[in-house]
Amino acid sequence: MSDPAIEAQLAPLRKSVKEQGDLVRKLKADGAGDIDVQRAVAELKHRKKALEDKELALAPKDDFDRIKMEDLLKQKFFFDQSFAIYGGINGLYDFGPMGCAMKSNLLQAWRKHFILEEQMLEVDTAMLTPEPVLKASGHVDRFQDYMVKDLKNGECFRADHLIEATLEKLLEDKKLPDEKKEEIRALLPTIDGMSKEDMGETLKKYNMKSPVTGNDLTEPLDFNLMFATSIGPTGQIKGFLRPETAQGIFVNFKRLLEFNQGKLPFAAAQIGNSFRNEISPRSGLIRVREFTMAEIEHFCDPNMKEHPKFAGLADTELMLYSACNQMDGKPPEKVKIGEAVKSKLVANETLGYFMARIQMFMVKMGVDPTRLRFRQHLSNEMAHYACDCWDAECKTSYGWVECVGCADRSCYDLNQHTKATGVRLSAEKPLPAPISLLCILIFSTIDVTECAPQKGPLGKTFKQNAKSITERLAGLSLEDINTFEQSLNDKGSADVVVNGESFAITKDMVQIKRFQKTVHVEEFVPSVIEPSFGIGRIMYSIFEHNFKVREGDEQRTYLSLPAVIAPYKCSVLPLSANPEFNVLVQKLSSALTSVDISHKVDTSSGSIGRRYARTDQIAIPYGITVDFDSLKEPQTATLRERETMKQIRAPIAELPGVVKNLADGRCTWEDVLAKYPLFEQQESTK
Amino acid sequence: MSDPAIEAQLAPLRKSVKEQGDLVRKLKADGAGDIDVQRAVAELKHRKKALEDKELALAPKDDFDRIKMEDLLKQKFFFDQSFAIYGGINGLYDFGPMGCAMKSNLLQAWRKHFILEEQMLEVDTAMLTPEPVLKASGHVDRFQDYMVKDLKNGECFRADHLIEATLEKLLEDKKLPDEKKEEIRALLPTIDGMSKEDMGETLKKYNMKSPVTGNDLTEPLDFNLMFATSIGPTGQIKGFLRPETAQGIFVNFKRLLEFNQGKLPFAAAQIGNSFRNEISPRSGLIRVREFTMAEIEHFCDPNMKEHPKFAGLADTELMLYSACNQMDGKPPEKVKIGEAVKSKLVANETLGYFMARIQMFMVKMGVDPTRLRFRQHLSNEMAHYACDCWDAECKTSYGWVECVGCADRSCYDLNQHTKATGVRLSAEKPLPAPISLLCILIFSTIDVTECAPQKGPLGKTFKQNAKSITERLAGLSLEDINTFEQSLNDKGSADVVVNGESFAITKDMVQIKRFQKTVHVEEFVPSVIEPSFGIGRIMYSIFEHNFKVREGDEQRTYLSLPAVIAPYKCSVLPLSANPEFNVLVQKLSSALTSVDISHKVDTSSGSIGRRYARTDQIAIPYGITVDFDSLKEPQTATLRERETMKQIRAPIAELPGVVKNLADGRCTWEDVLAKYPLFEQQESTK
Repeated sequence: MSDPAIEAQLAPLRKSVKEQGDLVRKLKADGAGDIDVQRAVAELKHRKKALEDKELALAPKDDFDRIKMEDLLKQKFFFDQSFAIYGGINGLYDFGPMGCAMKSNLLQAWRKHFILEEQMLEVDTAMLTPEPVLKASGHVDRFQDYMVKDLKNGECFRADHLIEATLEKLLEDKKLPDEKKEEIRALLPTIDGMSKEDMGETLKKYNMKSPVTGNDLTEPLDFNLMFATSIGPTGQIKGFLRPETAQGIFVNFKRLLEFNQGKLPFAAAQIGNSFRNEISPRSGLIRVREFTMAEIEHFCDPNMKEHPKFAGLADTELMLYSACNQMDGKPPEKVKIGEAVKSKLVANETLGYFMARIQMFMVKMGVDPTRLRFRQHLSNEMAHYACDCWDAECKTSYGWVECVGCADRSCYDLNQHTKATGVRLSAEKPLPAPISLLCILIFSTIDVTECAPQKGPLGKTFKQNAKSITERLAGLSLEDINTFEQSLNDKGSADVVVNGESFAITKDMVQIKRFQKTVHVEEFVPSVIEPSFGIGRIMYSIFEHNFKVREGDEQRTYLSLPAVIAPYKCSVLPLSANPEFNVLVQKLSSALTSVDISHKVDTSSGSIGRRYARTDQIAIPYGITVDFDSLKEPQTATLRERETMKQIRAPIAELPGVVKNLADGRCTWEDVLAKYPLFEQQESTK
Repeated sequence: MSDPAIEAQLAPLRKSVKEQGDLVRKLKADGAGDIDVQRAVAELKHRKKALEDKELALAPKDDFDRIKMEDLLKQKFFFDQSFAIYGGINGLYDFGPMGCAMKSNLLQAWRKHFILEEQMLEVDTAMLTPEPVLKASGHVDRFQDYMVKDLKNGECFRADHLIEATLEKLLEDKKLPDEKKEEIRALLPTIDGMSKEDMGETLKKYNMKSPVTGNDLTEPLDFNLMFATSIGPTGQIKGFLRPETAQGIFVNFKRLLEFNQGKLPFAAAQIGNSFRNEISPRSGLIRVREFTMAEIEHFCDPNMKEHPKFAGLADTELMLYSACNQMDGKPPEKVKIGEAVKSKLVANETLGYFMARIQMFMVKMGVDPTRLRFRQHLSNEMAHYACDCWDAECKTSYGWVECVGCADRSCYDLNQHTKATGVRLSAEKPLPAPISLLCILIFSTIDVTECAPQKGPLGKTFKQNAKSITERLAGLSLEDINTFEQSLNDKGSADVVVNGESFAITKDMVQIKRFQKTVHVEEFVPSVIEPSFGIGRIMYSIFEHNFKVREGDEQRTYLSLPAVIAPYKCSVLPLSANPEFNVLVQKLSSALTSVDISHKVDTSSGSIGRRYARTDQIAIPYGITVDFDSLKEPQTATLRERETMKQIRAPIAELPGVVKNLADGRCTWEDVLAKYPLFEQQESTK
C-alpha cells in the first residue's frame, strides 16, 4: 500500500469514495429520508468495490496458481464435489481422508483455544428446527433473496445479479444513446436496495431475458434460503434445517444460565452443520449449501462488557479496516486492540478480546497474518440489532473473504424468543445496596401480574395435556396475559397453543392476579457478543496461504500446513523394499500409535525423494526413514522436516517422543537440530 | 440364568420357542411357500418376545430408578428436549455442556480406538442427499412404515402398533365369544408380515378407531421415514436428509480406493448425523429423529475375509446369542471369538475381529460387560443383501437395546450404485500366475464394449456441458450402452441425463466400439463389512450402567463414568471462601489447562462434602482441594477419587501431572495411593 506509484493510481478512487462517504454522513446528519440514504449508501458501496478491485489488481502479483492447487486438493482427496458419480450437486462437498483429518484437527484446536481456555459451555443441539423458532429469530422473514426463472426451462437466477449484469452489458453497447447510459448509471447503485416491485419494473423496462437461453423470465419470486421440511408424520409441523447454530444456544439460555448457577457472564459454544439453499453456489468451499460453523455466544450484563483477560492482550496489533476509513477511502491500519477499545473504535473490551483471540487462532492454524484483516460493518450493513460488528477477512484469489464474524448482537435474540414464547430469557443481579429506606421502597417494589392455572378444572378437561398447558399458562408474558384476559372477558374463553395444538381455556381454569411484590434483585436481558466461524472458508484460506511450489521444481507442489492441523503428523518410510526394514517400520508405527500420533506408512516403491514429495503434498510435517544404518546397533533412523527438508539422525527409541513434542508444539525444529546430528544427503525425486 | 427356580418357570416358554423354531426350519427345508414361512417366523418372534419378557421379569431386581436418573441428567443438563420453550418437538434432543463434552470425548475415543488404530480413512460427507442415491440404496422404496390418521384431528398412529394394541385389548374382553378369540390369536403373530391391503382389511373387519379420540381412521398410508426437502431454487432436485452415513462412503468408493493406491482391504469411516422421521419417537435417546452415528465400511476381496490382527484377539470371550439358540429357546453363550469363527457361527475373521474390538470399546466407555451381548439376526430379519449380522445389545430398563450393528453387507451397495450410475465401483487384483499358455488365453481375454464420445461434435452442440456429458458417456455400463445403441439405431438419437438435465445425443457424437482385450488383472466388486454405532443409544446405556446411589444416602446420586469420557476430568475446590486460597486455585486451573485437562473450579459456598457430591453428579473422577495446609511450604493439596472417595495429599506442583496420567489411563488410582500419603477426613454433606 505504500508504493507511491500505486497510491497515485488509487488516489482518484479514494477521493471518489470519500466524497460519497461524506455525502452519506451529511444526509444522515440532516435527517434525510431513508430512501435517499439507502441510495447514497448503495453508491458508496459501488465506489468502495471499485477501489478494492483496483487495489487487488495493482497488488504485486504472486505466482499462485489456483488450478494447480485445486488439482492437488482433488487428487489427494482433501475435498471434492458430493455425489459426483450421480452428476454432482452444486454447493455440496465431501471431505476425504485428508480434508476430514485436517477439519477434525482444526475443530479440536478450536475447542482447546476457545472452549477449554475460557471454560465455555459447549452444546450440541438439533439441526431440524420448527418454524416458530426461525420466525422469532427473523430468518423466515428476512433470510431471503429474489429470483427469476427462465419461463421455458425453469433455470433460476438471482434477480439482483441478473439485473446488474444486464445493465452493465447494456452500458458496453456503443450505440446506446447517452441519456440512456446516464439513466443506467443512476440505476446501478440502487439495485441493492430494490424492492420486489422495483425489480419487476426494471426487468420489464429493459426487457430482460435469460442470459443463457434468451428466453422470457418470470416476475421476481420470493425465495427463502432455508431448506424446508416437515417434522413428524402429520406434516403439520413445518420445519427448516437451521441456517446457523446460534439459535440452538439462545433457546437453551435458561438451562445454561441455571447450569452456570445463575451467574453472568458466561459463554456457550456450538460446533455443527448449518444449511443455506443458495440460488447459485460458487467459489468452491466459499459459498456452499451445507457447512460447518463454530459459534460462541458470550452472555453478559449490557452495562458490563469489560473482560478480565483483556489487559493481557491489549498490546496485540490487529489490522483494522474501520467503517470510518472505508467511508474515507483510506486503507486499513495496524492498531493495538487496547487503543482501539480506548478510542471507542471497537465497541467494548469483550468484543476486542475476542478479536485478538480470533487473530491468534487464525495465525496458529496457518492463516498468513499479512493476508488477514478485520473489517468493520458500515452502520447500514449491520443487522439492525447489532451495535458493532467486525469481520475477520482473509485475502484469497477470490478477493477478501469473510471467515469469522464478530458481532455485538445486544439483547435482540433473547428478546425475540421471549416475545414468541412468553418464557422470560433474562438474568438477575442483586440491586445496589440501598442508601436509605426510601431507596428500598423505590428500587425494590414491582408490579406483578400472574396467570395462575387452576389444576382441578384443567386436569378434568385436558387430562394428559393439562401439564403442558399449565406450564404454558405460567409462562405467559404480561402482554399475553392482558390479551388473554380480554378474550376471557369478551368471549368467555381464550385459546392457548401448545405443541402446535390449540386449547380453549375457560374462566374457571385460571385466576388472573395482580399485586405488588418487594424484590431485592433486578431482572435484565443479557447482551450477546458472538464470534461466528465459517470452518470451510477458514480451511480454504489456509489451503491458499499454504500452497507452495519447491524452488526450481514447478511440478513439486506441496502444502505447508502447521503440524497442529496437518492430517498426518508423521510418515514412516523404509529406504527400500528390503524386507529387513519391515520389523523396524512396524515397531515405529506401533510406538507412534501408542502416543496418539497419526502417521502414514509408505512402503510403496519409488525413490525416497519421490516418496518425500508425496508426503509433502499431503502436508506431513515430519518423516522418519529407516535405512541400512538403522539395522546396526544402536538403532537409529533419520527424521526430516518438510519446510527446510533438513534431516537429523536419532535413536529409534527416541523418535516417537521427539515427533510427539514437535507435533504438540512443546519443542521446535530448531531445538531438534540443536540436539541431534544433521544427516546430510541430497533429496532426489528421480 | 442358572437359578433352577427361574429356569423351571422359563422352561415351558423355551420349549414353546423351540417347537416353533423347529417348525420354521422344517418349512424352510420342505421348501414351503413364502407366506407360510413368514407366518411361522412371525409366531416365532412372538414366542421369543414372550420368553424374553419373562426372563427380564424374573431377573433379580436391581434398585435402578429411571425417574431419579432422568432427573439428574436433566438437572445437570446432560441432555433435554429440544425447543422446550416452544413446547418441544418429540424425538429431538439437545446435549447440554455435560452431555456434549461426554459425547465429544466418546467420539474422540472412538477415533483413537478404531480410526487411528487401523489407519482407517475418515470422511465427512454431505447430509443433504439427492433422491437417486437413496433410490439406488433402496431407502426410497424400503425405508417405510404404514400409518393411519385420525380423520378428524389428523393424529397419526403406526398401523401395525395400532392393530396389535386393539386386538390385544379385544382379547381382554370377557364377553368376546371363544371362536372370535381364537381368530384373533391366530391373527396376532401375522401382523409383522402384513401388506398394506391386509392391514386395511383388518382395520375394517374389526372396525378399529383412534385409541385416543375414538374417531374414524384413514386407510393405511405409506409413510417414508426420511425427511424430504428440495435442493436448489428450482425445486427440481428432490432430496432427503441422509438416513445413515454409510451411503456417503459408498458413493466415494472410487476416490477412496484411489487414495489407497488401488489396494484392498481398507476401511473408511464416518461420524455424523443422520435423520429418521419416526412416526412416534419414544424412550428418550433410544428412538429419536436426529442422531449421531459412527460407521465403518471395511472393503475387502469377497474371497479374502481373513484379518491380520484376528489371531491377537481370538481368545476374547463374547456373549453370543446365536440365531440357532434363539430358535431353540436357549440362552446366549459365552464363546471365544476364535472358536466362533472356526465353527462358522460367526461368518468370517473380519466380522469376528470387529465384534471383539466393539466389545473392548464398549467396556472401555463404561458399558457393564454383564449387560452386553451380541445377538445374531435370524435369516429373515437380515436385510436381504447381508450374509451375517450381529447386533451388540445393551440391557437397559427398556429391555435389550441394539447399540451397534455389525453386518457383512456383501457387495450389495457398490453394485446398486454401479447399476444406477454406470460408474464401475470395483477393484482389481492381479490374476493368479498362469500355469500354461492356455490359462493366459482363458483368463486374460475379455470382451470390451466402449462408448467413445466424439469431442468435436459434442463440444459444438453442448458447449459448456460437453465435458460432463463426455464423462457420463464414458461411464456407461454395458447394459446402458446396449440400450443407448438401440435408441440411436431406432430413433437416430438417445438421451443422457447429466446433473438432472437431459441431452439428446446423435449418431455423429459417439462411436460404439466392441473388441477383445488381453488383461492381467481381474476386476471384482468388493465385499463390505460394516460396524455401525448409534452414539445416542450407547450414551444412554452408559448412563444407566453408571448411575449410582451412595450407600446409606439415597439422595446422593452420582455417575461413575470412566475418566476417558467424563465431561470434566477434575474439579478444583477451595476449602472455604478464604481469599488466600484464590491464588492457588487460579494457579492449579492454569496448570491443568496447559496440560489440556478439562476441569471445573467451584468456588461457591457450601461445605466441601456438598461440593464433592455436586461434582460426583457430573461424574468428575478427580477433585483437588486447596486447604489451610496448602498455604504452608512446601505447598500441597488433596486429591480425591470419586468411586472410593479416598484422598491423598501431594505437592501442588505434581498434581496436574498426576491427574493427566490418571485421565489418560497411564496410571491407576492404586498407583497414586501407593505413592502418596492418604489424607484421612470424613466427608460430610451437611
